[in-house]
Amino acid sequence: MTDLATATPAQLSTLDAAGRATLFTDARTANTFAPTPVTDTELTAIWDLAKWAPTSANTQPLRILYVRPGPGRERLVHHMNEGNKAKTASAPAVAVLAVDTQFHEHIPTLLPFRPELKDVFAANETMRTASGMFNATLQAGYFILSIRAHGLAAGPMSGFDAASVDAEFFPDGRWHGILVVNIGDPGPTPWFDRLPRLRQQDTVRWA
Amino acid sequence: MTDLATATPAQLSTLDAAGRATLFTDARTANTFAPTPVTDTELTAIWDLAKWAPTSANTQPLRILYVRPGPGRERLVHHMNEGNKAKTASAPAVAVLAVDTQFHEHIPTLLPFRPELKDVFAANETMRTASGMFNATLQAGYFILSIRAHGLAAGPMSGFDAASVDAEFFPDGRWHGILVVNIGDPGPTPWFDRLPRLRQQDTVRWA
Repeated sequence: MTDLATATPAQLSTLDAAGRATLFTDARTANTFAPTPVTDTELTAIWDLAKWAPTSANTQPLRILYVRPGPGRERLVHHMNEGNKAKTASAPAVAVLAVDTQFHEHIPTLLPFRPELKDVFAANETMRTASGMFNATLQAGYFILSIRAHGLAAGPMSGFDAASVDAEFFPDGRWHGILVVNIGDPGPTPWFDRLPRLRQQDTVRWA
Repeated sequence: MTDLATATPAQLSTLDAAGRATLFTDARTANTFAPTPVTDTELTAIWDLAKWAPTSANTQPLRILYVRPGPGRERLVHHMNEGNKAKTASAPAVAVLAVDTQFHEHIPTLLPFRPELKDVFAANETMRTASGMFNATLQAGYFILSIRAHGLAAGPMSGFDAASVDAEFFPDGRWHGILVVNIGDPGPTPWFDRLPRLRQQDTVRWA
């Protein structure tokens, strides 16, 4: 173990009120976008931040297809549900979040002290599929908050034809789309009044 | 529409370097915990922040069972995998994250302009189960980052017997456990050296 590993850490820092507002309490799902471009550098930075948050056994199964304005976006809009087409057609950038169904192939690199976990996943497709979907979805949550961390609005959408998105963009069958996220500066009237949240007594129990 | 809904928002804020470190780049999964208590007030605040991040159709299917030191924690440790028992037994607080399999019953409250979505989910158990699991898992990602926002270390674990946790804590069958998260100040040698992350070229594509 290195010195880093044996040190007892100092008190951890909290996130200040401005940071909480940016990620959670003031941030909103945008339904319209300003035409301001989102650069490839910004999109790269969003993933470079989100990637640090944890996954089970460090498996990191989430993959990202970034779609820019132009032919790629036109191909994607075709597979969105009717109510989402206009939003995606006007978004300066879109991320198709996907799970790598063969994520276990990276385990010897990602978890070097337990490379044999690759073979455990290889032998059990049911467990592999469930674990990949679970951890990719956790990472989708981190990804949405990372978009907000970069001063951009996120517009996540489950309303798309996943099978046809997969056929269009991932024809080798290895990636499977799980969420489409519009990214950009908010446009005119970007959101409605905030919807309610469940009360603590409906969501939290104690033991 | 109110003035709030029709205003074009100002430029969104970014998360500063300290906030990024607290949530993503410096934060680590803790394997040991200091004995410092975590208060019910802190646990309540963690959920009160995480709850604002988005879910599909505002369905919010995640539920939380907070387990404190004492008989509840002893009951939980019994259902953890061997490699996780000691960690949970020493954690000042533990959250059992669960999906509410009947989350759709809240839809008329949560999505008041589309209450009929409740019946769509009621009639399609396959869709309901997939949507509940997906959105609860997104919320689990938000929850982990909210723990970090409160200056505490998270220790998320998939290694537990979900069926026996459900039988022990959720005997009416409505909640289904998806992740157990230890919560507290880090203890001695709380983590190993940081594990690698996949490279951009292994995870990101462009269209």
